[in-house]
Amino acid sequence: MKAYALLGGPTDLWPQNIQAQFRQAQAQGDLIIGVDRGSLFLEELGIIPDLVVGDFDSLQKKDLAQIENSVADIRYSNPVKDWTDTELMLQTAFRDYAIQNLTIFGATGGRIDHFLTNLWMILNPAIRSFASRLTFIDQQNLIKFFNPGRHTVTKKEIYPYIGFASLTSIRDFNIIGARYKLKNYSGDYPRVFASNEFLTGHEQFEISFAKGMIAAIYSKDVDRFHNLS
Amino acid sequence: MKAYALLGGPTDLWPQNIQAQFRQAQAQGDLIIGVDRGSLFLEELGIIPDLVVGDFDSLQKKDLAQIENSVADIRYSNPVKDWTDTELMLQTAFRDYAIQNLTIFGATGGRIDHFLTNLWMILNPAIRSFASRLTFIDQQNLIKFFNPGRHTVTKKEIYPYIGFASLTSIRDFNIIGARYKLKNYSGDYPRVFASNEFLTGHEQFEISFAKGMIAAIYSKDVDRFHNLS
Repeated sequence: MKAYALLGGPTDLWPQNIQAQFRQAQAQGDLIIGVDRGSLFLEELGIIPDLVVGDFDSLQKKDLAQIENSVADIRYSNPVKDWTDTELMLQTAFRDYAIQNLTIFGATGGRIDHFLTNLWMILNPAIRSFASRLTFIDQQNLIKFFNPGRHTVTKKEIYPYIGFASLTSIRDFNIIGARYKLKNYSGDYPRVFASNEFLTGHEQFEISFAKGMIAAIYSKDVDRFHNLS
Repeated sequence: MKAYALLGGPTDLWPQNIQAQFRQAQAQGDLIIGVDRGSLFLEELGIIPDLVVGDFDSLQKKDLAQIENSVADIRYSNPVKDWTDTELMLQTAFRDYAIQNLTIFGATGGRIDHFLTNLWMILNPAIRSFASRLTFIDQQNLIKFFNPGRHTVTKKEIYPYIGFASLTSIRDFNIIGARYKLKNYSGDYPRVFASNEFLTGHEQFEISFAKGMIAAIYSKDVDRFHNLS
C-alpha cells in the first residue's frame, strides 16, 4: 500500500495540484494521513484522512471535534515527548499499516526549526530504515533519501535541477554520468552539491557512497518574486 | 563597520520592513552588499549597494549594465567554482572591508539545495571563524550561530520561540535557565531542539557545548495559510 501524508507547514508552499493528488490517491485506495494541523487542511480540501496523528492543541475545539467525528484512526501524541508527531506517524504507517512508501506534503517552509526537524528526523536510527521509501514534495522541490550503497537516480520531468545534500559526514561519494561528476568525495560535515543536471537525452545517472545519508533534492525555479517597483 | 547583504532568495520571504532596514543602514554608513540577483533587488528597492558579488549570468544585460554603472565595487565570480557567491562575499566583506558583523536577507526559502548551501556554508572551515558574527533574517525566522563554548542567548521581542539546531555531531550540549532544559546531550548526527522559550520575566538564558556548531533559530508564527474554502 502507498500512503500520502499532509503536515502542518505553510499551505502557500503546496504544489498546485495537491488536492487532485490526494483525491486520486484516495480513489486508488492509498492510505491518507494527516499530521496535527495537516489533518484539518485535508478536511478543508474535502478529503477525509484514514489516519491522523498529533496533539492537536493548536486546533479549535470545533475543528478537533470535526476530525474526531470523521476519522477512523486517531493517534493522540503527548505534547512533551521524545518523538515528534511526524516520527510517531511514520512508525504507525510503516509498522501498523505496513505501507510500502510514503509521500509527504507540508514538511517545508515556515519556521526553520520545524523544517529542519522534519528533514533531520530521517537521521533518527528508528526512522533511517524507512528513509529510502520517503518522498517530500513542495511547490518547487522533491526530496528523496539514500542510505549508503550504489543507486540509480531517475529524471523527473518537471524538475531541471538536482542537488545532493550529505546530511552528515560522508565517505567516498561518487556522482557518475551526470552533468557535474564527483569522485570519491569524503567530508566530515554536511555539504550540498547543488544544481546538478541530467545529461541531454539521459533519463538517469548513478550515485554511490560508503557511509552517511544523502538527500537528493530535485528542484525547479518558481516565480515567487513580488513586483518591487 | 556593520554590513547588510541581500541574496537572491524568494522576495515573498523578506521581512516586511526590509526596505526601511536597508535605508537606515545606508544612512548610518553601514556596508550594503548584493549577491547575484540580490544586487538587482536592492536597486529595485532604491538602494545602491556598495559591493556586489556574483556571476550575474541569470540577469538580463540591461540589469547587469545598471548594476555596473552604479556600484563602486563589483566582484565577478566564476560560474564553475569551489566557492559559492555567498562564500566569496563573506571573504570579501570580512577580509577586505574588515566588517564587524553581517546581517543576511534572502538566504532562505525557494530551492532547498540553495537554502541548505547557505545554511551549511557556516561549516566551511574558512567561514566558521566568522560564524558568530552572522545573522540570517527572513519573514519569520532569525538565525544566529555559535561555536563551542558557553554563550548567553538574549530574547528578541518579536520572536516567541527559539530552537537550537546542532548542524553536526555535538558533545555536551546544555541549555540552562530556559523553559525546556537540556543536560549534557551528545549526539552523532544533526538534530533540532525546537520550540524552546524564555522563562517569563527573563531576557536571557545560557547554552554551552564542547564540540560542534549550533544554529539558534528564533521564530514566530506568520499567517501564511491560504483560504482553503
